Amino acid sequence: MRRWALTIALDPQHELPLFLQLAGAIAEDIRRGRLKAGDALPGSRELADLLGVNRNTVVAGYGELVAEGLLSTRVGGGTFVAQAQAAPVATIAPSSEFPTYALAPPAHPPPHDAPLPAGVLMLSQSIADVRLFPDRALARAFRRAIGSRSRSLLARSDARGHPRLRGELAAMLARSRALAVTPDNLMITRSIEQAIDLVARTLIAPGDAVAVEAFGYPPARSVLKLAGARLLPIPLDDEGMDVAALEALLKHQRLRAVIVTPHHQFPTTAVMSRGRRERLAELSLQHGFAIIEDDYDHEFHYEGKPVLPIAAGHGRGNVIYVGSLANLLAPGIGTGFVAAPPPVFERLAGLRAASDARGDAAMECAIAELFEDGELLRHVRRTRRIYQARRDAFAAALERQLGGALSFHIPEGGMALWARADDGIDVPAWTAAGAREGVWFKDARAYDFFHREQPFLRLGFSYHDEAELNEAAARMARALQQVRAKRRPIETGQRAATRAARSA
Amino acid sequence: MRRWALTIALDPQHELPLFLQLAGAIAEDIRRGRLKAGDALPGSRELADLLGVNRNTVVAGYGELVAEGLLSTRVGGGTFVAQAQAAPVATIAPSSEFPTYALAPPAHPPPHDAPLPAGVLMLSQSIADVRLFPDRALARAFRRAIGSRSRSLLARSDARGHPRLRGELAAMLARSRALAVTPDNLMITRSIEQAIDLVARTLIAPGDAVAVEAFGYPPARSVLKLAGARLLPIPLDDEGMDVAALEALLKHQRLRAVIVTPHHQFPTTAVMSRGRRERLAELSLQHGFAIIEDDYDHEFHYEGKPVLPIAAGHGRGNVIYVGSLANLLAPGIGTGFVAAPPPVFERLAGLRAASDARGDAAMECAIAELFEDGELLRHVRRTRRIYQARRDAFAAALERQLGGALSFHIPEGGMALWARADDGIDVPAWTAAGAREGVWFKDARAYDFFHREQPFLRLGFSYHDEAELNEAAARMARALQQVRAKRRPIETGQRAATRAARSA
Repeated sequence: MRRWALTIALDPQHELPLFLQLAGAIAEDIRRGRLKAGDALPGSRELADLLGVNRNTVVAGYGELVAEGLLSTRVGGGTFVAQAQAAPVATIAPSSEFPTYALAPPAHPPPHDAPLPAGVLMLSQSIADVRLFPDRALARAFRRAIGSRSRSLLARSDARGHPRLRGELAAMLARSRALAVTPDNLMITRSIEQAIDLVARTLIAPGDAVAVEAFGYPPARSVLKLAGARLLPIPLDDEGMDVAALEALLKHQRLRAVIVTPHHQFPTTAVMSRGRRERLAELSLQHGFAIIEDDYDHEFHYEGKPVLPIAAGHGRGNVIYVGSLANLLAPGIGTGFVAAPPPVFERLAGLRAASDARGDAAMECAIAELFEDGELLRHVRRTRRIYQARRDAFAAALERQLGGALSFHIPEGGMALWARADDGIDVPAWTAAGAREGVWFKDARAYDFFHREQPFLRLGFSYHDEAELNEAAARMARALQQVRAKRRPIETGQRAATRAARSA
Repeated sequence: MRRWALTIALDPQHELPLFLQLAGAIAEDIRRGRLKAGDALPGSRELADLLGVNRNTVVAGYGELVAEGLLSTRVGGGTFVAQAQAAPVATIAPSSEFPTYALAPPAHPPPHDAPLPAGVLMLSQSIADVRLFPDRALARAFRRAIGSRSRSLLARSDARGHPRLRGELAAMLARSRALAVTPDNLMITRSIEQAIDLVARTLIAPGDAVAVEAFGYPPARSVLKLAGARLLPIPLDDEGMDVAALEALLKHQRLRAVIVTPHHQFPTTAVMSRGRRERLAELSLQHGFAIIEDDYDHEFHYEGKPVLPIAAGHGRGNVIYVGSLANLLAPGIGTGFVAAPPPVFERLAGLRAASDARGDAAMECAIAELFEDGELLRHVRRTRRIYQARRDAFAAALERQLGGALSFHIPEGGMALWARADDGIDVPAWTAAGAREGVWFKDARAYDFFHREQPFLRLGFSYHDEAELNEAAARMARALQQVRAKRRPIETGQRAATRAARSA
């Protein structure tokens, strides 16, 4: 009989009790074939001495494995590896790792974890440059928030968000955006996506028609569809959603809601004119549909009269207003919010209490401190100035490097340029060449309701500084040269072939 | 003509442009009646001098109000408060504050913001005592997380949670609970409720039957119903869910899922026996339904063999495992998680990406640091010891103070006692008297599937220290005396009436 030597060191500090650690180690050795059917285990006293544990620990560990069918005891004493093994935990067939019930296809592509490789410049997302983030101030605020007020703060949990942040944010929204918002109809959410999801689930019954912008934010479309909405795309132009087209649709179609990004249309950056906003609000009162106003980057408006949100005007009883601090602070701090008239708010809060019962009191209070000590408003002013300069620098660099190939207007606000590539350009080939050159950008296909191939690009300028944006434009230009260089020889060759065919 | 004096000080540091501040101030004075229809406004130059602003600011502000119909200009010059006012922002009729579309009733009662009054002892919730919370360690970890790694950390966002915390948590779950969990099938959620909500929305189609425990967690029932599930309650006993009853149900009812709290049944605290767990897993394989295993307070098991989760055993391919760190850390830090086999996980991640696209990278990394430096495991051991002592002290105090009125078993784990009040006791009157005495506790009606009046109480012991728990038991006893004292005269009166009727 081979002599088995246990190779595990039991750890009294370990979470798992010693007897289960022992049982796990033996089961593992059986699985690996180091212990085979019929092999004898050491006596419990012997093993206990060897391991420096109480004998009862060994008895209990063996008992576990006997119960699992991995070990057996024999008349006359002794413990052995069992002959016919019941399927033990450690040797489960791969099939039992997978569900035996049917699953619907995924509702949305799952995220993939692709950190930005070093040196790559990223224009494909318009997110906050976290190098500007007041990290020390937030860390200080967080320490103060969870330190001195521990008990009252961390023990409470309110699905609507902590009253301190609700109060600060409501005051800010009332002051700077003229919204009729109080802490009683304002909820802090984990993200703007959560806010839209709560609204969708509160408003939509399966089959309800919802108008969306023809180019828009894919997660918003996904959650509306998940709630059962039938989505109807409305065309866009330089003034945002074409409200006349919406009006025409309303002649023969009842709508439950319209979701719209009037401030800086996502992704085209167009500002919806005041006239269209008012008309949209009127239509909503007249036809009894809700307006979901997504004001995701309100702070970043650089010129022209800022037009007030639809939620600040007549008809605001039909408007549900969602926003976010993520574009102001950092993608990793996604705090969003939703404001709604009381009857809607009550339903949103109930849904939130069921589906995500506890707010993030610690982070919410830390952000409230940033409001209270003025840090947040200073950060708004500072980043607005910086992003405006980046917009201008980036537009100039694109003009210089890619003047003939890209056309765009300078947006009044936001964190991205919306540009159209020249007709002759193979955009997918260009973006692929760009990735090889170390600049990530992409066409607008993902934003298009119909997922068509696009000559349009949304180029984020907020994430990089001016020197980086210059370099990004240069890389885009090099990538374009490669694409053109590749195509030219083929064209020449084709032309030669054509000539040859003619002369034949 | 009365002379109007503008009372606002314009603030150049304010978020709102000066001209809009001015327009808002004038509109407010019109709303309050300080300016009446026909009143003349000062000339733009005069007002500009008065306010110390550029004249164009005044012109633009007046222009806003003219556009809104609040002011009018007259031929020959001058600006006046308009006669017939279009409904201006500030004077909207109350009706326009409310939606003109229909709303379904709330899916779940909205939360109400009731902070614990000073001095009140709270047994109605079994939540972490945040006085034990390692607040300094977390604040330090948070500072390190958002400080040194700002760019890589705050810029990234992954709906599945930050890889660092996924890695740490997966290792812990594999080590201490023998789960087949890796960072690739483990998602960090905002809360355990969000985890259950994602699972419900991924699994359930309208009309699907889902078995629930007859007493359970109301938010879980709410989100299952919201997803369209038809809920079927399964009875409970001292070994948790009655699996034989489930088996009988399966003879004539197809199930999509069973949601269960085997570790410490919520709210009854019963530990599901190993035999029942195995049978449940077998049934799930045989009948092709999912098991949603809710292991909300795994750490707090004080004695007896810890039974491994169903998700660690045979049939785990059908188990979706949800848990939380909130009971370990603090309600205000609700971080939860869900682990599932790959095909289910992919769908959960897709739904999360659509409905709450960005994880909380900052907090997640701070918690990952607590794992990495061993702080979290130390906290587990420490609080487990403390809560066990509190359980014993509280049980002894209840025995002493309320021995005849309450019967209960000492639970093997968890954060609460499940007690039965003597038949003669008017439980609602007792809990009301308790609130007057400064102790909050409640009967189990909210947990009951049928919302029936209950002789059962779930009494949380984790939130208070031993002296407080002693005092809480004393207050409960005083409250009971009051209820009995009140009832006795009535009973006596009734008896007297009965006697009178008899003797008549």
